Amino acid sequence: MEMKFCQSCGMPLTNEVLGTNADGTPNEDYCIYCYKDGKFTQDMTMEQMIEHCAQFTDEINRNSGQNLTVEQMKEQMRQFFPHLKRWKNDIISNEILYILLPDYAAHEIVYLSQAIASDEFALKENPKYVNKAVAPTMEPVKSIGGFRTLPDYSFETMPDDYAALVLIGGFGWSTPVAEQVVPIVKKAIEKGKTVGAICNAASFMAKHGFLNAVKHTGNGLDQLKIWGGENYTNPEGYIHAQAVSDGCIVTANGSATLEFAKELLTLLENDTPERIEMYYQFNKQGFCNLFSIE
Amino acid sequence: MEMKFCQSCGMPLTNEVLGTNADGTPNEDYCIYCYKDGKFTQDMTMEQMIEHCAQFTDEINRNSGQNLTVEQMKEQMRQFFPHLKRWKNDIISNEILYILLPDYAAHEIVYLSQAIASDEFALKENPKYVNKAVAPTMEPVKSIGGFRTLPDYSFETMPDDYAALVLIGGFGWSTPVAEQVVPIVKKAIEKGKTVGAICNAASFMAKHGFLNAVKHTGNGLDQLKIWGGENYTNPEGYIHAQAVSDGCIVTANGSATLEFAKELLTLLENDTPERIEMYYQFNKQGFCNLFSIE
Repeated sequence: MEMKFCQSCGMPLTNEVLGTNADGTPNEDYCIYCYKDGKFTQDMTMEQMIEHCAQFTDEINRNSGQNLTVEQMKEQMRQFFPHLKRWKNDIISNEILYILLPDYAAHEIVYLSQAIASDEFALKENPKYVNKAVAPTMEPVKSIGGFRTLPDYSFETMPDDYAALVLIGGFGWSTPVAEQVVPIVKKAIEKGKTVGAICNAASFMAKHGFLNAVKHTGNGLDQLKIWGGENYTNPEGYIHAQAVSDGCIVTANGSATLEFAKELLTLLENDTPERIEMYYQFNKQGFCNLFSIE
Repeated sequence: MEMKFCQSCGMPLTNEVLGTNADGTPNEDYCIYCYKDGKFTQDMTMEQMIEHCAQFTDEINRNSGQNLTVEQMKEQMRQFFPHLKRWKNDIISNEILYILLPDYAAHEIVYLSQAIASDEFALKENPKYVNKAVAPTMEPVKSIGGFRTLPDYSFETMPDDYAALVLIGGFGWSTPVAEQVVPIVKKAIEKGKTVGAICNAASFMAKHGFLNAVKHTGNGLDQLKIWGGENYTNPEGYIHAQAVSDGCIVTANGSATLEFAKELLTLLENDTPERIEMYYQFNKQGFCNLFSIE
């Protein structure tokens, strides 16, 4: 017979410890410690459950014939728990989706995408996030500079779930194709996803009322007003800074590629604050200003 | 009978005005005013020839039945003369070729390529130069950030002539495929072409002895020495600056994307010095530092 495990705490699930449904019948998925009378006995995250279970490391070692330290036990649970029914829907995609419209401004996302994909020596072997290019169709998209990028997804094939949505500036935001991005951003904000918008993409956000509930910036207040028209009701929320992060939304002007990267990397906890700052300063100040020769 | 034209000044070439070869026989390509005794009567450029011929605008109008102004006549000659035998080898390609190896550092050329392709409003309708991506093969090349760029040329199909060769940094320069770039750079330098090399591409230049005759920079002198080994004989030529332009060669460190762009844009006379400086400062200082709100 196949060994069953509680789909919440991972303990071996024998008939003696089955949880109960609302009508009192046994529940086949969860143990009685986790699930009773049709609901979970405690509201917790996967990580909290791991902490909780790790208290019983000695007992688990005894029963399983292992000899793990508490840290090793937690690590094992971190591998195993995402496969359990209770937690598997919590797994958040690690893809950062970049919306590329024709004539996009390539300089506006290079620092972000490079930091996402690599550490300071570009040797990050298990990056926290993965960059994906999303375009209206699967046809190559040309940057202002004339280079052609192959999309990883089209608007039609892009996944529902992702870690962040980044709208790269450029000249596409004032063209009809930009309208197709409106429902994508709307859904992202409803779901509380991280959304970044730089340069004309910030103006696009103003135009569709997406900046009315957050502090924000863009290519100057005048530009936001012109693009936003009646839909932009939050000029008091404008901050004259290179980049502004508020809640889940990060905005920036077109010269703020490094500040935009810094705010998004911080919000996404891509690295430690110290290392994010180091990356920012290295590129902002430049190697020769930071490191002089004696 | 097909009308023939002097392949130097463009005048109709009848038997009465044929130039002469060294042995006194008639030359079928040039008129006697341009070519005598086997050589050109005057050493001049195509543009000087156009200026010279434009003096005879009235006469040309009379003979051709046209009624052009001097400026219109020059414009017509500028269209026509590049097809003449004497000048057609002088026509310089306006393509800027960017060498992309796998794992290239996209941030290192975005400011350059964007300025090349656009004016401050990105509306340059007749850009002086055109950007083209060159890669080992026609397969897409992945940047460090993970975006895939489609090459315009492979090493095999790239043109012999171009306005400049730009080597983008990244991790490909320490891999075998970089060896294929050696003869390309060698030829470029022999022909006096503008060559830019940033970050690891500057180290690659040191490694193959291409920095021994010029002042230069790179990712620090130590890096150049390590990569260069015995082939790098010019450590005195190293300057600890973000970017260095000497003769036809521009080098920079990996944090110097804006300075690299500035030096190359200046060398290529892509725009006026004032506008190049403005572009640099806008992106270096940032919109909010340059333009405060009252």
